Amino acid sequence: MAETAELVEFDRGTCLRLLAHGVVGRVVFTDAAMPAAQPVNYVLDGEEIIFRTAGGSKLAAATRRAVVAFQVDDIDVDTHIGWSVLGIGEAYEVTDTDRLAELVERLPAPWASGRTAHTIAIPLPRLTGRRLCLGDADTG
Amino acid sequence: MAETAELVEFDRGTCLRLLAHGVVGRVVFTDAAMPAAQPVNYVLDGEEIIFRTAGGSKLAAATRRAVVAFQVDDIDVDTHIGWSVLGIGEAYEVTDTDRLAELVERLPAPWASGRTAHTIAIPLPRLTGRRLCLGDADTG
Repeated sequence: MAETAELVEFDRGTCLRLLAHGVVGRVVFTDAAMPAAQPVNYVLDGEEIIFRTAGGSKLAAATRRAVVAFQVDDIDVDTHIGWSVLGIGEAYEVTDTDRLAELVERLPAPWASGRTAHTIAIPLPRLTGRRLCLGDADTG
Repeated sequence: MAETAELVEFDRGTCLRLLAHGVVGRVVFTDAAMPAAQPVNYVLDGEEIIFRTAGGSKLAAATRRAVVAFQVDDIDVDTHIGWSVLGIGEAYEVTDTDRLAELVERLPAPWASGRTAHTIAIPLPRLTGRRLCLGDADTG
């Protein structure tokens, strides 16, 4: 992306609107002191990312009261034009039963049968995004 | 993804084949001590990820002899089935002129005109991947 008029940084409202329409994003976390990213289904609940992860999973452990990032993008593979949004916040497990009951309705798939699962929320105190034109060398 | 027969971990060869067919991936790095991920165009050169970034950019600074991850996925938004590959290695700048000349031919778009740019390589000593079925709670 050239440092010209094409560089468009999104405001918070635009970032949230884009997140609200996404389905799959990537949790960016630390795994054994190494950077890691893993795709998950998510929904936006207010201004928090919500996803589910199995009890005992790497992702469940890594997102327990840890500062993580959440990244969503949509890029046309032919034109290389699109957008990317990155949120950063301290993840926590949702344990409020009323909220859990409501989220179960909204999360896109049923719970894995016969397994425990955790519902993780990532608040987004830091939220940035921008239009991408990956044809040029990146300036970010 | 349920911990059943659907959980398929890929071997290194499969991961490399999937990376070879990708176009856009995400550099996972640390930015001001915070986790970050940024999409880039890339090519696979041997067993190294190659992408370009502008001189002075955040990404150029963050990938200078730093251990970073590189993540590529392809997920059907309707079925939530797909795959994700994650490589980890110490990024370095490609400065060999012969190799740079060859890479310029392969990288999918011209250099941003009138700007300096860096060609960054990420070796992949650690490379993992797996089939995803995001409908169920994640187990990773």
